[in-house]
Amino acid sequence: MDVKIYYQPLMDLLQAEKIAYADAADSLQEYGWDYLREVHQLPAIIIWPNTAQQVSSILRLANNYLWPVTARGAGTSLSAAAVPTVGGIVLDLKKMNRILHIDLPNSQAIVEAGVINQALADAVAQFDLYYPPDPASRGSSTIGGNIAHSSGGPRAVKYGTTRDYVLNLEVVLANGEVIWTGANTLKFSAGYNLTQLFIGSEGTLGIVTKAVLKLVPMPKHRQMMIAEFGLVSEACSAVAKIFQAGFTPSALEMVAMDAWQHTLKFAGKPLRNTHASALLLIEADGITNAEVQTQIEGIYGVLESNAVQNVELAETFEEQERIWAIRRGVGEAAKSASSYKEEDCVVPRAKLPALMEKLEALKRQWNFRAFSYGHAGDGNIHINILRDNLNDDEWQALSAPIAELLSYAVELGGAISGEHGIGLTQKPFLPLQLNSVSMDLLKGIKRVFDPQGILNPGKIF
Amino acid sequence: MDVKIYYQPLMDLLQAEKIAYADAADSLQEYGWDYLREVHQLPAIIIWPNTAQQVSSILRLANNYLWPVTARGAGTSLSAAAVPTVGGIVLDLKKMNRILHIDLPNSQAIVEAGVINQALADAVAQFDLYYPPDPASRGSSTIGGNIAHSSGGPRAVKYGTTRDYVLNLEVVLANGEVIWTGANTLKFSAGYNLTQLFIGSEGTLGIVTKAVLKLVPMPKHRQMMIAEFGLVSEACSAVAKIFQAGFTPSALEMVAMDAWQHTLKFAGKPLRNTHASALLLIEADGITNAEVQTQIEGIYGVLESNAVQNVELAETFEEQERIWAIRRGVGEAAKSASSYKEEDCVVPRAKLPALMEKLEALKRQWNFRAFSYGHAGDGNIHINILRDNLNDDEWQALSAPIAELLSYAVELGGAISGEHGIGLTQKPFLPLQLNSVSMDLLKGIKRVFDPQGILNPGKIF
Repeated sequence: MDVKIYYQPLMDLLQAEKIAYADAADSLQEYGWDYLREVHQLPAIIIWPNTAQQVSSILRLANNYLWPVTARGAGTSLSAAAVPTVGGIVLDLKKMNRILHIDLPNSQAIVEAGVINQALADAVAQFDLYYPPDPASRGSSTIGGNIAHSSGGPRAVKYGTTRDYVLNLEVVLANGEVIWTGANTLKFSAGYNLTQLFIGSEGTLGIVTKAVLKLVPMPKHRQMMIAEFGLVSEACSAVAKIFQAGFTPSALEMVAMDAWQHTLKFAGKPLRNTHASALLLIEADGITNAEVQTQIEGIYGVLESNAVQNVELAETFEEQERIWAIRRGVGEAAKSASSYKEEDCVVPRAKLPALMEKLEALKRQWNFRAFSYGHAGDGNIHINILRDNLNDDEWQALSAPIAELLSYAVELGGAISGEHGIGLTQKPFLPLQLNSVSMDLLKGIKRVFDPQGILNPGKIF
Repeated sequence: MDVKIYYQPLMDLLQAEKIAYADAADSLQEYGWDYLREVHQLPAIIIWPNTAQQVSSILRLANNYLWPVTARGAGTSLSAAAVPTVGGIVLDLKKMNRILHIDLPNSQAIVEAGVINQALADAVAQFDLYYPPDPASRGSSTIGGNIAHSSGGPRAVKYGTTRDYVLNLEVVLANGEVIWTGANTLKFSAGYNLTQLFIGSEGTLGIVTKAVLKLVPMPKHRQMMIAEFGLVSEACSAVAKIFQAGFTPSALEMVAMDAWQHTLKFAGKPLRNTHASALLLIEADGITNAEVQTQIEGIYGVLESNAVQNVELAETFEEQERIWAIRRGVGEAAKSASSYKEEDCVVPRAKLPALMEKLEALKRQWNFRAFSYGHAGDGNIHINILRDNLNDDEWQALSAPIAELLSYAVELGGAISGEHGIGLTQKPFLPLQLNSVSMDLLKGIKRVFDPQGILNPGKIF
């Protein structure tokens, strides 16, 4: 059947309201992927609404005709959350990209969901304000997408994740009703916290169209160290020691040396001259140089007593940015090496060495390569399991060691995802995290918000 | 009908499991109140379980026989949330007061719900760790009660509320099933965030029995100022200016001078020699003395250009504690003046002067007194509307100006409760905050978790 017949009432609406859309197969292709590029499904139509009211009109129809609707930001999700699993409508929110208000007296910003993370950070920086959530994708990912996944980033270790910066949300519900979830305040105890419920719900409970975000003062001083370790597990052991000594770095990233070197190579930069197996990127920030110095010197002392091989200081902003650019490039570089499965486990930070030793054992036992890197400071490591030359059977078989690794993370008090979400690819593993009682609660909540199941169907459960 | 017949299966369970209880009217009396002491309802029985398993057995029976169950911490709630509105069972969790584990390498504590806030704070302080949520009731209120209300306190302005410190919860559901809501990690993106949903749900979705809490390094230095202003609205105006200048105090409280003087008098201390109408208590903390000094000096500069009349510094710990003790005593002192209605509005902080001017206008128009004080730094003010000599009709009639004040708070982008919750007394005002669509979502969530409505019936909606 021709899409234009099945979706005729939609086409009528789009034309009447002059809402941009595309339904030719070649323009739809890209919207069948997310950044993981492991799962593809063509949508029937892609729509670019301009307002919450247009989103509402579309959802009202969709809920009536039972058309599936998948909201999309920049498509930088890594669990196929933005892939329209059963086709249907993709709502691309990129045109809703206005920063509506930067409220200086209240240190808040009101933005549309399609605003790019970096664009917001840059806009508020002019006023000495700071929006800390900084996923590696921040140059392209949207605030709406960050909210859908409860995204973090390197600075989450000191500043918290997206969850900690969202005060209030405008959401279009499955039936087209538009609500605000809370208030534009730092505290809210007036009924169940709908704001927090939408954060991390991956577009399955409603479509976020605006957000009121908290901003904090821009730290005026920043210093950074690169510390090398002989073993990944030694680097990870040092991480918990730093916090236990009472220090609070503004970033504490671990990158396994094979991933770092591969990223340098991919970027056409000279490789690092080292025999180390892992490095820590450690940053401290603050309003005075003295407090930053205190943190950096104290952390240096902890490293010295914890098997560090070498420490370099990056004092200038340019040097720090150069290092961060490499760090943000690790994911893209890994993609150039091979297609991969992306894992995103998180454990209490002192359990990281045990998790990484488990990974090493599984790599030896199952004979696969993986790049490990990420937010060691909050116990959250991204593990890119590389396909390399594995055939289809061997590649599929790796689900077994992945399940073993994720089970172990849960056993250590951790979770199967810290910031990437469940989407489609992590669905088979969610029962490792949640028992059937909890799963039933999630499904019950879904039914309250989206009784007909039109919103991002097939995701999470 | 004798309670022992109606509740016979319960009595059998309690005796078989040797669970402590009381059902004599005189021992039940106190459990019909919360700290507000405005609403009273006798429960049929009060039970002191020792374990989550006992809570589970009791709820399993209650869900079968449709007995209402109201969980209770210390009963320091201020919206009648702990009052057993329709009688039935009160589960007092005070015996579940063990700090099960202080996990130093991960800066976490695992506690039972009945642990008193201050007991936890003291226990972790020995290890140079800090549990920041510090409601005025911290000497008696429990972690479980703090979670039920998403409690804040003076330090929330820098450190966040209870919501920001809860990583994972053990919860007994209405049907007796016991779940953990998340993981013991700083990040979690594995399905809808049940942890955040339970926080602030006032015992209506399940009964929290254990919590895994985040701890942070104890700040080593602290300084405090008392600043006097001619008008409440001038004091509140200075608040937003402090943040806008880039400072982050660790506490920023406003207390109207009539409330402060009354508290001093109630405590038998000499009154303050002043013509000011309001004071700000401003504290800064940090890991170095230099950063605290920078904050204090910078904030002093902001005060100087914003109508401050007088500033005193409290540098010693003893002097600071003396001031904090007075601040924490304001609520109790107010109670000695008169019975009162407790409001807990919160607005974006720069809107506080407008809110306080509205309050002044309503006081003049309706001829009532109110003590205003609280967490000005995050826009959250407690307003104790004093009954004084009003007769019943006049007292009831004050619902009109209260509704007008709360409506105005919502209009300013705020909420009708920042940290006290809705309970019973704020229920009539919740529609000022949430429209019928949002209310239906809340009711839908309630039905998922407690389909028979046995948990704290009559609260929130």
